[in-house]
Amino acid sequence: MTTTQPRPPARATPPCPPDTGLLSPVRAGTPVETAVSDLAWLQAMLDAEAALARAQARCGTVPPQAAEAITAAARADHLDLRELALAARETANPVVGLVKALRTVVAARSPQAAEYVHRGSTSQDVFDTGAMLVAARSLRLMEADLREVAEALARLAAGHRDTVMAGRTLTLHAVPTTFGLKAAGWRHLVLQAAERLRHVADSGLPVSLGGAAGTLAGYLQYAGQGAAHEAVLDDLVAAFADETGLAVPVLPWHALRTPLADLGAALAHTTGALGKIAADVQVLTRTEVGEVAEPALAGRGASSAMPHKRNPVLATLIRSAALQVPALASVLAQCLVTEDERSAGGWHAEWLPLRECLRLTGGATHTAVELSRGLTIHPERMRTNVGATGGQIVSERLSAVLAPRLGVPAAKELLTEASLRAAEQSRPLADVLAELPQLNGEFTRTQLAELLDPAAYTGAAGPLVDRALARPAGPPAPSPDAAEPGR
Amino acid sequence: MTTTQPRPPARATPPCPPDTGLLSPVRAGTPVETAVSDLAWLQAMLDAEAALARAQARCGTVPPQAAEAITAAARADHLDLRELALAARETANPVVGLVKALRTVVAARSPQAAEYVHRGSTSQDVFDTGAMLVAARSLRLMEADLREVAEALARLAAGHRDTVMAGRTLTLHAVPTTFGLKAAGWRHLVLQAAERLRHVADSGLPVSLGGAAGTLAGYLQYAGQGAAHEAVLDDLVAAFADETGLAVPVLPWHALRTPLADLGAALAHTTGALGKIAADVQVLTRTEVGEVAEPALAGRGASSAMPHKRNPVLATLIRSAALQVPALASVLAQCLVTEDERSAGGWHAEWLPLRECLRLTGGATHTAVELSRGLTIHPERMRTNVGATGGQIVSERLSAVLAPRLGVPAAKELLTEASLRAAEQSRPLADVLAELPQLNGEFTRTQLAELLDPAAYTGAAGPLVDRALARPAGPPAPSPDAAEPGR
Amino acid sequence: MTTTQPRPPARATPPCPPDTGLLSPVRAGTPVETAVSDLAWLQAMLDAEAALARAQARCGTVPPQAAEAITAAARADHLDLRELALAARETANPVVGLVKALRTVVAARSPQAAEYVHRGSTSQDVFDTGAMLVAARSLRLMEADLREVAEALARLAAGHRDTVMAGRTLTLHAVPTTFGLKAAGWRHLVLQAAERLRHVADSGLPVSLGGAAGTLAGYLQYAGQGAAHEAVLDDLVAAFADETGLAVPVLPWHALRTPLADLGAALAHTTGALGKIAADVQVLTRTEVGEVAEPALAGRGASSAMPHKRNPVLATLIRSAALQVPALASVLAQCLVTEDERSAGGWHAEWLPLRECLRLTGGATHTAVELSRGLTIHPERMRTNVGATGGQIVSERLSAVLAPRLGVPAAKELLTEASLRAAEQSRPLADVLAELPQLNGEFTRTQLAELLDPAAYTGAAGPLVDRALARPAGPPAPSPDAAEPGR
Amino acid sequence: MTTTQPRPPARATPPCPPDTGLLSPVRAGTPVETAVSDLAWLQAMLDAEAALARAQARCGTVPPQAAEAITAAARADHLDLRELALAARETANPVVGLVKALRTVVAARSPQAAEYVHRGSTSQDVFDTGAMLVAARSLRLMEADLREVAEALARLAAGHRDTVMAGRTLTLHAVPTTFGLKAAGWRHLVLQAAERLRHVADSGLPVSLGGAAGTLAGYLQYAGQGAAHEAVLDDLVAAFADETGLAVPVLPWHALRTPLADLGAALAHTTGALGKIAADVQVLTRTEVGEVAEPALAGRGASSAMPHKRNPVLATLIRSAALQVPALASVLAQCLVTEDERSAGGWHAEWLPLRECLRLTGGATHTAVELSRGLTIHPERMRTNVGATGGQIVSERLSAVLAPRLGVPAAKELLTEASLRAAEQSRPLADVLAELPQLNGEFTRTQLAELLDPAAYTGAAGPLVDRALARPAGPPAPSPDAAEPGR
Repeated sequence: MTTTQPRPPARATPPCPPDTGLLSPVRAGTPVETAVSDLAWLQAMLDAEAALARAQARCGTVPPQAAEAITAAARADHLDLRELALAARETANPVVGLVKALRTVVAARSPQAAEYVHRGSTSQDVFDTGAMLVAARSLRLMEADLREVAEALARLAAGHRDTVMAGRTLTLHAVPTTFGLKAAGWRHLVLQAAERLRHVADSGLPVSLGGAAGTLAGYLQYAGQGAAHEAVLDDLVAAFADETGLAVPVLPWHALRTPLADLGAALAHTTGALGKIAADVQVLTRTEVGEVAEPALAGRGASSAMPHKRNPVLATLIRSAALQVPALASVLAQCLVTEDERSAGGWHAEWLPLRECLRLTGGATHTAVELSRGLTIHPERMRTNVGATGGQIVSERLSAVLAPRLGVPAAKELLTEASLRAAEQSRPLADVLAELPQLNGEFTRTQLAELLDPAAYTGAAGPLVDRALARPAGPPAPSPDAAEPGR
Repeated sequence: MTTTQPRPPARATPPCPPDTGLLSPVRAGTPVETAVSDLAWLQAMLDAEAALARAQARCGTVPPQAAEAITAAARADHLDLRELALAARETANPVVGLVKALRTVVAARSPQAAEYVHRGSTSQDVFDTGAMLVAARSLRLMEADLREVAEALARLAAGHRDTVMAGRTLTLHAVPTTFGLKAAGWRHLVLQAAERLRHVADSGLPVSLGGAAGTLAGYLQYAGQGAAHEAVLDDLVAAFADETGLAVPVLPWHALRTPLADLGAALAHTTGALGKIAADVQVLTRTEVGEVAEPALAGRGASSAMPHKRNPVLATLIRSAALQVPALASVLAQCLVTEDERSAGGWHAEWLPLRECLRLTGGATHTAVELSRGLTIHPERMRTNVGATGGQIVSERLSAVLAPRLGVPAAKELLTEASLRAAEQSRPLADVLAELPQLNGEFTRTQLAELLDPAAYTGAAGPLVDRALARPAGPPAPSPDAAEPGR
Repeated sequence: MTTTQPRPPARATPPCPPDTGLLSPVRAGTPVETAVSDLAWLQAMLDAEAALARAQARCGTVPPQAAEAITAAARADHLDLRELALAARETANPVVGLVKALRTVVAARSPQAAEYVHRGSTSQDVFDTGAMLVAARSLRLMEADLREVAEALARLAAGHRDTVMAGRTLTLHAVPTTFGLKAAGWRHLVLQAAERLRHVADSGLPVSLGGAAGTLAGYLQYAGQGAAHEAVLDDLVAAFADETGLAVPVLPWHALRTPLADLGAALAHTTGALGKIAADVQVLTRTEVGEVAEPALAGRGASSAMPHKRNPVLATLIRSAALQVPALASVLAQCLVTEDERSAGGWHAEWLPLRECLRLTGGATHTAVELSRGLTIHPERMRTNVGATGGQIVSERLSAVLAPRLGVPAAKELLTEASLRAAEQSRPLADVLAELPQLNGEFTRTQLAELLDPAAYTGAAGPLVDRALARPAGPPAPSPDAAEPGR
Repeated sequence: MTTTQPRPPARATPPCPPDTGLLSPVRAGTPVETAVSDLAWLQAMLDAEAALARAQARCGTVPPQAAEAITAAARADHLDLRELALAARETANPVVGLVKALRTVVAARSPQAAEYVHRGSTSQDVFDTGAMLVAARSLRLMEADLREVAEALARLAAGHRDTVMAGRTLTLHAVPTTFGLKAAGWRHLVLQAAERLRHVADSGLPVSLGGAAGTLAGYLQYAGQGAAHEAVLDDLVAAFADETGLAVPVLPWHALRTPLADLGAALAHTTGALGKIAADVQVLTRTEVGEVAEPALAGRGASSAMPHKRNPVLATLIRSAALQVPALASVLAQCLVTEDERSAGGWHAEWLPLRECLRLTGGATHTAVELSRGLTIHPERMRTNVGATGGQIVSERLSAVLAPRLGVPAAKELLTEASLRAAEQSRPLADVLAELPQLNGEFTRTQLAELLDPAAYTGAAGPLVDRALARPAGPPAPSPDAAEPGR
């Protein structure tokens, strides 16, 4: 049913086929996609209108029946999304058209109730409250995903606490480490991301209730002349927050855009954390390295050209999100610099970047669940690789062992030269060292072999894993399916 | 008709309502929206597949009938967009699924022809060629828009060549200027943007033809053992370029991403140029300034709360685009840093930013046509405002007049103090100056009045307008409706 | 005294004149500039080396005298900054050269102690710990500035609690507001920024202690074979944190870059918050608006050309910072995506953006102190401007008053038309309304005048100011001059 | 000699130690560092002042002797950089102080000439012209570097035209390619970058000549009442351009910021191009890959901890620049959106990002010369690696060979399964294929071996290298040491 009657756009336009996620496989078909869709956004704005009417009813400034009628009518499937989108060009936001359309729907049931639609309100109150609802719903999905990722990584970290592998810095083998420590680091990042999302979700998503220019004058005008402004102010904001499940803001925030900037920062951290995992998985998947493999699934990772390929597509999708979100989040940070009581463009520039940040991040968290749960580890390949330099990977240790005998600089120089010779001659470092007159008689071959054993030089990797895993993953989050307050 | 049979995604997902432009009014309903839609992108990729088959037919490596059958089948409405989008998660790009689906459609008509679908090719050849086709079509729309904008601005510049207004720097009245010069500057920026788009459109949009890893080995393998690689190489690339209307690249560019970076830069310049116009329109529209007004249209610019408002929505929409595109374009620039013969994530991160850059910019150019054609100028208000400082706006001139008499520093200091006194006492600068002993007898009141006339101190504004307008707007662009080569 | 002997760079280079802040007036001469200078950074890295030696001494793995000698030698004026900078090209970081130089300085006093310089350590531990020290010192300066800004804004908000001015949305007069509410909003943003900085300062700035690849193997190797890794691990990290005053990390964070991303986000929020203030000050300073003025100071805001100008330079400087920091912070967010145990480039890309974010933000906070303390408010001009639309600014109120009589849509439409007519005819809205047959006899002229009084329609502006000011500005921060732990 | 007497800053500030490049090794000691230093920038602004005086002398509006005196005095070593930097806080730009100081220096020699300093001019004309001079000088350095890089890469491409290596996509071996083709691709990117820089250098760097608000009124006022504005306009701009060697702009561009945005785009492309090379070098340097090595130099690439390491520091430095420049360039693109005749903050926000873009890019080009000239290639390791998958790397070829027999899908499926089995069993693909009943008798073992030879499946790699190298590198650029016009 089409209820809006927007005036025709300036030039005739053909109907436009909608987006389906074709260009963004990281989120295609994931739950967040539905949660932030145009339809969900419209529903969230309608939820805001309905919650406002109910809140006003609780304050006695709207008849309860009107609030009920508005709530009943505030369903996205009663409105025509595309017409609202087109009408938004005329007013620079979709709420003017939404209000008109909603009023028509309500009026069809109750002409009296229609008078109370959007009473005393302004477009930005409805849009921003709707955006916070969408964000809240999306964050719940991401938090649940991150919890699953953290659990899977905890299993990997514990299971591979002592699986030795090459630690790599500046692309080269550095000293040995363990896969457990790497997985524990991934988990730590994921927990930090979850904390940041939770911090925003807990208190950073307020209702917007300011009226035309942030003074709530319209709301108070309708509340009546005699009403004590202080009381109405407190009661109305509290009731609106309660009806939506969102936080109570200190001040109307039409032009104080901290919630958006905070969301951007937390989402960019989240894709960054997952992007770190993806970057490592990609290195370890390389044909020459082969230490991990993405979960195998028939058809997964297929190439259109090369039958033998099994591409690391999950890491690829996650990295594609991680490359986009920081730039999108920077738009949200930039929009803090906003003029007047409502910016002419600054506000409007936030919408797409916010949605994309949510959608890409939620897609990445969903993808990370699959990646972390199904990642295959190849300890034997790790073992082979860690030995690839013939012992050079523990040169630091030998340097430390020799330092008391030779002095730090001389020990380091000796090892530098020995490593170079070993590399040039493709010989084990032990053999080169055994020939050195400076070491004459210092070590037996057995002692040297022990000193050069990578597995014996993993430092505190094990205890670090233990410590990191002992850190709780935080309280259980609300179920994504839990009923929302006020609904 | 659904022809793809992608394997089910890992977790069951509800159908997701598609995007309609609700969050991006700057482009909702504009032609570019259709030109870059998922459907258009899919069609462009199918166009690439068909053009490739025809090009191979011209080189004798595919039977002409097969190329015809493939061309006939390569229609987006034969495929299921959403299923392709979902299937893309399995392979990190939508082409693997597209090829499978296209092959099925072709096979239904001609099993033999199906063997020649995507022959020797790779996903990136098809995707990137499709992206270039989408970009080419979008740039044509933008160029046509920019031409209209430039014409409208030329009319404004010529019509207001001598309309005096306040020149403003660091938010304050500086010296007089003319609206003609301002409009000529806007037009100059628009022409520069059009030049940059044209430069990219002319040679910056190449076909992608590299095969699995940029060596064209697959294409050559199918072309036959005896084929001279040099000849096949040249002929096939040339034919493919001819069939698509795109440029011939020097080398396969799977990992040499200049075309994307160039597009980003040109599109960011375009929204920047239009954003400058929007920023100026917003200043001049301010209630206290009131020197211009956006085109009036019933319902346009309405507020959901305030009946008296007529918001400058077109400038607002344009500015909202201008705030987003530079960040999106920075992702495209960043993706130049891409590893290997095809990046695992760098390539995939380009798709959304490219589409959004195109869509936001095309929306902004379309909006700018309306803004520039309908902008109302209020010369009388400009005249009032330019006099608001009681002559201080020409203090520079007086400083120059007095410099030969008093020396530059003393003249400037005297004017600084006189201006301060005039401002503090809210008196005309002429009155304050008339009392100064240093100027005793230098000027009559009439001379002072002449010196203080803003209209007499517009410098070279007029000739600058003439020069700028004498600069041609460039050759007529191809009509956006013109048939494309090879179709 | 020059103690480093780096090998000559590949090609001879002339000495390069250093930066002095010429291109960044927002921070030139402000305290943060010194706090983040190359010299300060070098000193911070030396502080890290010294603190590490002392921490190792506390754990018994370095002789106390050696730690003392290293601490005594670790002074930046003992080293040659420029030579270290040049030497850093050879190793991609300045720590390798620093260690060599420090060892030479220490050896000149105590050859034995020199053996204990950088013992078991790695470049990144020293660099990152130094960076956290620089950040901690800078954040203290910013927090102190923000506290002063918040106090000044509290005074403005309280003093102008009921100063009526035009609320502006999308550049136009919307409904009345008060300057007090605007200032309270500014203060709220500033407090939010201070909270975010404090949050990072409190727990987000950890020591870096990982050794070559994050396992602490080198530290443990020197601690001796028999040492229980768990005990050494805990004690050493705790002692290092204690000696530096920084936090204890859960894990070594060479490749887990949350601290940098968090800093970027908090700093971008801070310049955004101040940028909002600057944007508003710029609008209100406009010649046609004239509602506020920056603090007057002889010579401040002078133009090289126009004697009468008094440019709002403080707001300009702040805005210049706010336009840069989000992009710089996005680099820090991007660098979360870092491969291996230490990235080859990702780590190195953080240094400049971090320093610039600190420097621009610290310059902006310092500038904001001056701006907020000296801002002049012109209530009479606000009063004049709020009346400029002849009553249209309260059209919302009239619409609400008439809605019960006419219905919401009819009331709004009537006001829309009346406002349009009033604007076109430049007549007071009251006069137009008085002629309307629909309102026949509804209101006396006196009643209309009362309804149209902007001062009577400021909604909850006053109570909102009270509420916002009742919110404490947070606990007193440590004095920027306070002694640092461990020094 | 200190000639400026800026008023003391609001709060006493300690002297600040200057930057030396400690945090930016990619540019420390490289020629561009000196070319964009504060001192060079100051000198360029002084060059602009001097060129302006000479241009005015050529137009007869300034006495030749005055122009000479100004030119003689316009030396940066006559001024105090730090005091100018501090004074710039008072006026939001360094030119007001510079003019005052320059006037003092000139007056000491010729009081009459001092009257002609900065005559009719404005800060932005001087600053922007100076910035263009700095950019022009920097671009010359970069172009010369890129030419050397392109030559070195041409040698690599020609020398390794047929050196077979694994082509890698999504981190995995795809099909064979040649190192020659990779190097040719790098060179192509470098040539594209050089073209973009040249394009900007040729016409994108105009003088700035607008006067107080872009009308040139001040210049014309001093030129005299009777002067025909058109003639003065043309002559003065042309003379100024001639004296500086910069381009003639169509219009004053104080608020039309295309030159800055173009510079940003070209510089971001340049670091992106070099960043691609660095990314590839890093992959190929990995311990497990080992196909290339950075130029060996004693001490180069040393680690502070690990004696055996020889870090790829040049690629690391280049990548660090490539990660920063796109974000910095996005600030320049964003600043196109600038209000009024001169922005209050938008202009000022450009300075640092421009300088950093120049400095990072010039450092990266300089570093790339060293990298490209000294890169060591290990063909034998490439050969070993290309065989690592036991023939799977040519599965595409076999698929094409079998397609005519089995049909495309069946052929691909057979190869997919055979590759999987070969991988799981770690057997050569040839052995697995030999057992397949579907291939019974199709190929002899010899034929299979030939089909599976990676060297026989490099497609058009050779001819592509030839074509790419046949493309000229462009005309020889002017020597960086060449005398500048007008000096």
